[in-house]
Amino acid sequence: MKQELLYEGKAKQIYSTANPDEVIIYYKDDATAGNGAKKAQFEDKGRLNSEISRMIYMDLMKNGIKTHLIKSVNEREQLCHKVDIILLEAIVRNIAAGSLVKRIGLEEGKKLNPPILEFCYKADAFNDPLINDDHAVALGLATHEELDFIRGEMRKINDYLKALWLEVGIDLVDFKIEFGRMKDGTIVLADEISPDTCRLWDSKTGEKLDKDRFRQDMGGVIEAYEEIHRRLKDRT
Amino acid sequence: MKQELLYEGKAKQIYSTANPDEVIIYYKDDATAGNGAKKAQFEDKGRLNSEISRMIYMDLMKNGIKTHLIKSVNEREQLCHKVDIILLEAIVRNIAAGSLVKRIGLEEGKKLNPPILEFCYKADAFNDPLINDDHAVALGLATHEELDFIRGEMRKINDYLKALWLEVGIDLVDFKIEFGRMKDGTIVLADEISPDTCRLWDSKTGEKLDKDRFRQDMGGVIEAYEEIHRRLKDRT
Ligand SMILES: Nc1ncnc2c1ncn2[C@@H]1O[C@H](COP(=O)(O)OP(=O)(O)OP(=O)(O)O)[C@@H](O)[C@H]1O
Ligand SMILES: Nc1ncnc2c1ncn2[C@@H]1O[C@H](COP(=O)(O)OP(=O)(O)OP(=O)(O)O)[C@@H](O)[C@H]1O
Ligand SMILES: [Mg+2]
Ligand SMILES: [Mg+2]
Repeated sequence: MKQELLYEGKAKQIYSTANPDEVIIYYKDDATAGNGAKKAQFEDKGRLNSEISRMIYMDLMKNGIKTHLIKSVNEREQLCHKVDIILLEAIVRNIAAGSLVKRIGLEEGKKLNPPILEFCYKADAFNDPLINDDHAVALGLATHEELDFIRGEMRKINDYLKALWLEVGIDLVDFKIEFGRMKDGTIVLADEISPDTCRLWDSKTGEKLDKDRFRQDMGGVIEAYEEIHRRLKDRT
Repeated sequence: MKQELLYEGKAKQIYSTANPDEVIIYYKDDATAGNGAKKAQFEDKGRLNSEISRMIYMDLMKNGIKTHLIKSVNEREQLCHKVDIILLEAIVRNIAAGSLVKRIGLEEGKKLNPPILEFCYKADAFNDPLINDDHAVALGLATHEELDFIRGEMRKINDYLKALWLEVGIDLVDFKIEFGRMKDGTIVLADEISPDTCRLWDSKTGEKLDKDRFRQDMGGVIEAYEEIHRRLKDRT
């Protein structure tokens, strides 16, 4: 079913299909951090992330969230609506961690209620800088109305995800999502949701079960992804 | 009239007065750039900035903008309402320049219509980082309603300032202002508006008549401030 390789990213490949409005997303085993400065491969990561993302997307779609996902093709590949990605990293934070702590000094672990929403400009050349709505509009990324719509989706998705993760004993610290425009202009959730794109802390032990294990050289990276995969799988 | 030195900043000193709700702001000749990394003194800069800021404030107040200014004491000192400064640098941009160009790659000189509004967190330890409304609220700097009010003031002030500068042959590229809370909670414009805090380009020649001459080692710093002072003075 895969045809031409349209794009190769750090963690996934995008292939054309017989239908010009659909793509196949292939999940690689590559891991990168620090905008590609640090690289490694973890056997089976691609399969685990694809499956984790699929299970999460199924849950969101059951709750009425519109996404790019059509169906999984196999354990590493998903058939998706081809979208024009909006060049924004849409970030939701329930607990202070990572760049938030470094940039503005909120205390690591501080509960953020209501959550903090952020947009970063998806532009590797500028290191994905934080921007505000006026910047996004001036850059031609989205209109003010679209940004409000996206924020609404971010809040709903956060509510569903928090509940989902809590069910499997995980605190959802923060996550990054992307949105894209379908042919008819509809904005839908796209890209992946996985331990690569979320901070996930075990509710009881506080153990980190996400890409921070790789960023911080903690070891046990793939074991954490397997644990996340197992918990989501056991849930259904 | 000046009593105790309450605060010494990079460009100004704040003194208590007999009235606990009023301060005297003294304008120094010091210039700094890059968060204090670069330092110099320019004879007469304090006087020029104090006078420039006063003339601008008078114009804004005539237009109904509420500010901290009570009256000038002498050419270097102003009597002002003492306010609790809101730890935000409120930035308005009419033309792309400076950090905007560096951070997100908008082309230098690009007209921004509508203007871009930004808030930076006034925190030297973090290098005054750009923040969004959620950050400002989480940091306890202001409420969402206060941020909306401040944005409204920023837009009005920008409209008045653009007109004022245009009258004296200057394009207002961008500027930074601060706001503070009076004893009764009213939010008013505070701090200064001068070539230290604005980018001012001659409308005909494009010549820079502001602190960028110092930042970029262009020379003619005090001559530019004198020129700005003269033009504003001649206007009245
Ligand atoms: N449904 C979709 N249609 C088209 N592109 C998509 C879709 N879903 C995700 N993408 C894009 O496909 C790419 C996936 O590759 P990957 O996540 O490896 O990229 P990356 O290395 O993170 O780089 P970047 O996200 O900065 O392009 C991303 O650019 C993502 O925005
Ligand atoms: N009416 C006012 N009441 C109290 N403080 C004020 C008032 N107007 C301005 N300020 C504050 O007084 C200080 C003026 O000093 P200056 O501008 O030299 O400081 P700075 O070196 O820029 O440092 P910073 O602004 O980061 O404190 C600033 O902190 C400013 O916020
Ligand atoms: Mg990606
Ligand atoms: Mg200052």
